[in-house]
Amino acid sequence: MRQKIILDCDPGHDDAIALLLAARHPALELLAVTTVAGNQSVEKTSLNALKICSLAHIEQVPISKGMNQPLIRRARHAADIHGDSGLDGPALPTPYLSLTSQHAVDVLIDLLLQSDGDIILIPTGPLTNIATAMRRAPAIIPKIKAISLMGGAISVGNVTASAEFNIWADPEAAALVFACGRPITMVPLEVTHQALATEAIMQRLQAMHQAVPDFVIDLMRYFGESYRQVFGFAAPPLHDPCAVAAVIDPDIIVSKDMHVDIETRGEWTEGRTVCDLYGKTGLPPNVQVGYALHVERFWDLLLETLALYA
Amino acid sequence: MRQKIILDCDPGHDDAIALLLAARHPALELLAVTTVAGNQSVEKTSLNALKICSLAHIEQVPISKGMNQPLIRRARHAADIHGDSGLDGPALPTPYLSLTSQHAVDVLIDLLLQSDGDIILIPTGPLTNIATAMRRAPAIIPKIKAISLMGGAISVGNVTASAEFNIWADPEAAALVFACGRPITMVPLEVTHQALATEAIMQRLQAMHQAVPDFVIDLMRYFGESYRQVFGFAAPPLHDPCAVAAVIDPDIIVSKDMHVDIETRGEWTEGRTVCDLYGKTGLPPNVQVGYALHVERFWDLLLETLALYA
Amino acid sequence: MRQKIILDCDPGHDDAIALLLAARHPALELLAVTTVAGNQSVEKTSLNALKICSLAHIEQVPISKGMNQPLIRRARHAADIHGDSGLDGPALPTPYLSLTSQHAVDVLIDLLLQSDGDIILIPTGPLTNIATAMRRAPAIIPKIKAISLMGGAISVGNVTASAEFNIWADPEAAALVFACGRPITMVPLEVTHQALATEAIMQRLQAMHQAVPDFVIDLMRYFGESYRQVFGFAAPPLHDPCAVAAVIDPDIIVSKDMHVDIETRGEWTEGRTVCDLYGKTGLPPNVQVGYALHVERFWDLLLETLALYA
Amino acid sequence: MRQKIILDCDPGHDDAIALLLAARHPALELLAVTTVAGNQSVEKTSLNALKICSLAHIEQVPISKGMNQPLIRRARHAADIHGDSGLDGPALPTPYLSLTSQHAVDVLIDLLLQSDGDIILIPTGPLTNIATAMRRAPAIIPKIKAISLMGGAISVGNVTASAEFNIWADPEAAALVFACGRPITMVPLEVTHQALATEAIMQRLQAMHQAVPDFVIDLMRYFGESYRQVFGFAAPPLHDPCAVAAVIDPDIIVSKDMHVDIETRGEWTEGRTVCDLYGKTGLPPNVQVGYALHVERFWDLLLETLALYA
Repeated sequence: MRQKIILDCDPGHDDAIALLLAARHPALELLAVTTVAGNQSVEKTSLNALKICSLAHIEQVPISKGMNQPLIRRARHAADIHGDSGLDGPALPTPYLSLTSQHAVDVLIDLLLQSDGDIILIPTGPLTNIATAMRRAPAIIPKIKAISLMGGAISVGNVTASAEFNIWADPEAAALVFACGRPITMVPLEVTHQALATEAIMQRLQAMHQAVPDFVIDLMRYFGESYRQVFGFAAPPLHDPCAVAAVIDPDIIVSKDMHVDIETRGEWTEGRTVCDLYGKTGLPPNVQVGYALHVERFWDLLLETLALYA
Repeated sequence: MRQKIILDCDPGHDDAIALLLAARHPALELLAVTTVAGNQSVEKTSLNALKICSLAHIEQVPISKGMNQPLIRRARHAADIHGDSGLDGPALPTPYLSLTSQHAVDVLIDLLLQSDGDIILIPTGPLTNIATAMRRAPAIIPKIKAISLMGGAISVGNVTASAEFNIWADPEAAALVFACGRPITMVPLEVTHQALATEAIMQRLQAMHQAVPDFVIDLMRYFGESYRQVFGFAAPPLHDPCAVAAVIDPDIIVSKDMHVDIETRGEWTEGRTVCDLYGKTGLPPNVQVGYALHVERFWDLLLETLALYA
Repeated sequence: MRQKIILDCDPGHDDAIALLLAARHPALELLAVTTVAGNQSVEKTSLNALKICSLAHIEQVPISKGMNQPLIRRARHAADIHGDSGLDGPALPTPYLSLTSQHAVDVLIDLLLQSDGDIILIPTGPLTNIATAMRRAPAIIPKIKAISLMGGAISVGNVTASAEFNIWADPEAAALVFACGRPITMVPLEVTHQALATEAIMQRLQAMHQAVPDFVIDLMRYFGESYRQVFGFAAPPLHDPCAVAAVIDPDIIVSKDMHVDIETRGEWTEGRTVCDLYGKTGLPPNVQVGYALHVERFWDLLLETLALYA
Repeated sequence: MRQKIILDCDPGHDDAIALLLAARHPALELLAVTTVAGNQSVEKTSLNALKICSLAHIEQVPISKGMNQPLIRRARHAADIHGDSGLDGPALPTPYLSLTSQHAVDVLIDLLLQSDGDIILIPTGPLTNIATAMRRAPAIIPKIKAISLMGGAISVGNVTASAEFNIWADPEAAALVFACGRPITMVPLEVTHQALATEAIMQRLQAMHQAVPDFVIDLMRYFGESYRQVFGFAAPPLHDPCAVAAVIDPDIIVSKDMHVDIETRGEWTEGRTVCDLYGKTGLPPNVQVGYALHVERFWDLLLETLALYA
């Protein structure tokens, strides 16, 4: 039996690869792709999702557009990292696939309410869609089997000194989701900064001589340049695929259960995932926080799946 | 020429050792000890300072009592770590030394105003005395050569998930001091958690067969038990002496200049030292943030100084 | 031409009378009643809306259930004022009317998008439904002709020392609505505390000898007792009908244009409507703030409408 | 027996008149004048205090300079109201009196500690000196007989939509003072806006044909122009003398005991005096809040005292 998942994303370069992994790995059944504003506006991330699925011929999965603004804040995007389109770099044709007519929030609500409680949500963007669905239809909450999300940081952030982009972009949504009571795996920067697409990885992709791996190479070239300029990284980190990999192979992430709160009020710390490593809050753990990655296993898993796009 | 210093402290087990180091290292001239509430009330930390100096015959240094409450908050102490007296463990006689009649804040103001701008402040407790002096007499600020302080954390804290005790105990004071414009070296938990008083260190102290090293052993036995119970550490970290060592031998700390802000308003992050590792604030560096310690050099420096108490 | 309105409410004793006024006044065309959590849970306020409309034979207006929780906070109700049912006092039979299948937020979105920009929204509860609709479908905002809302206070509040209940119950929703850029009339406590249902008013109602006025009397008896006990008022204030009356006869409210912000972050002031009477913010007026009521005209208008329920 | 008082002030036009009243009314014994930054820097307010006392030959009262900055915030002055000197308008000669060498905070501490608990403090500026003294020497708190302060507002403020200037200029100091547990009388804008120096009052002053009343006229001409331009008032309000009058004749102010908190954290409400009129906090009253003034009695009291400066 394949694990049912919904990918809630804002592609985005690394989201694109998360989508390719989620759609084709034999252990997963991708029920829907829902898009959200984050790396770019939801218009752009939705178009990008269509382009990726069109290129890779992912045709059986409905793609639905979601929220274009955080719960209560102004939208803030990451054009410095992902470019004006949100997926700058590879030249992609106009997609032949199109969006469903249903709003992503309603897709989430309907799929969860109709389910047997066997769906894992994989959010790789801001948590606006998930939180909005939870507020509108609280009955979905006990139906969620688990949430495996890319976001947060134990130590320093990547968009401010305190916060990682996905959580910072909608901290109130993150606060609601982190407090929902369902099993949550958080895949923070400490994990994803170990998934670096080095030249050795690029060569393995190149050796496949196929359209999808070639597309991944183009994505990584652009993304690598962003990370070189903004963060001084030698190779780009594949954040979002880590959250998908953690569903396929939970042991691929080394983690610890702890209490995590989302800071929504600080002057310098808004959007911080406050990880209570030493149990100082006295509150019970609500999140399995990843802190390391089995790097080789991760790349084998990812590259073997990309190789299926022949 | 010895470097003039003022030690502003709240002894405290590791403060006690910082005081022993500051008073006897040949490179330093300890002008005054000023006490502040922190690990315990200022009554208790002042009494502890007198006891330590009496035991070690540190007789030429004036000891002055300072603020008993943070700038605007309720006082919060660390009895779980330092015991009810603030220096539980070793049995110490009633001190034969006594406090000056001058308030610590006035001592700071007078010494700095009369100086040639050649005094380094070494705060190893909450920054209440320093901030109060700066507000009452702003003219002291350009007179401060530098500040080498024990406090803060780059990653997780030790009193909350976000904050280290000294900063958390008076975050508004820390905010004023960090923004003062003078050179600041911050010695955070990442550094001090490397200065672990292991059994090997204890044996080196024992081999000295002297009263002061024996006193340090007693301190470390109690402190080690606190750290075992509260944090699960195998050996206790000597936080405060690191800030003194950083004045004696600046290269003993590996550090990086960055902008640091103090969070005073968060729901979960009050007292956090927000370290802008990637330069995301766009603000100029105001703090030299230590992140590693040359451990052997540190112990050699400390133990050689303690050996002078023959 | 009658003015098209949507009544977004949480009945509630005074909401009940606002509904009776909105449904029958000849100058108004009530397109829909949407319910929201506030005085009680949305289950209860929806049931109350059905009971009121069943009693008064308001049969042509769709009634739709909306949000049961504020945008991001825990729900907080006003059982001390409105009782456990939200409409304690009068004994009402099981309603013969029923809710539409559509969610209130979708009703708001559909009616506004299909309109010619000629609908006035009259919210008499927390602004959760309106704000949720605005976030999901920002295209509705330019379609709103105006908003006439009961809520806020210029001076002291009624649920905290700073805040009035409707704004306090969902301050983030209020902040979004007040910043939407459309014409807003705010009918605060300063106005509604002048609309007191005195014994003279009760006698005018009694003289009608009809079911609906008798129902209003029963409502006012219970509501009056609440206000006597909680606030020491001699007669109960008819808050919500004032916001409807302000649409029928704009001059019934004496008002001044000013800038109003919603406090969402204070320690003691959350949910305050900060009214910039002296223009100290330098920001342009966004709200027409009522501060007095033409009391006699108000009662004539209300009682004449209630008399139509013969 | 005259009532011992200390006037802690930031003259300032209305402070000047408060000082004239405090120094000469036969029911009062003015022990000291302490100055603080507020309407202008403490250098300027101290110079103004010297000028006022020199002009009026108030020679027996020590004048001491205090804090130039709030407890933790940047200093903010009111040049729009009081001009660049803090006392623009009347041309005053260089004062022949001079400041004591003691700091105002130490003056407050010494006088209170040496007293029999019979001193009333009358702060008419920001509460920085009082709060600083309380933090440095908490033993003064039980020695304070009472505090009669000009500051705060029940309804709207005068420097922001929420806050009155004296409280807003140092809200943390105000929070500490309001929570000190001693009897506090707060004389807010609701009271002081009734003490308007109308033309009738000006004529009574003019009829005295004396230097001090003439000086008061000059102050009021300038102050009246400020209030006309900034607030549209027809005549200027004599804020600070009201707090002195409330000590001389407590019934001159109509007041109500209630719980008052100081907002220090709001986005739009910092420095607000949150007055719990309806007892919604459930906290015991800590402040006697004035809300009306016996206007004629006030003017008689003030003018009779000014007439003594013959």
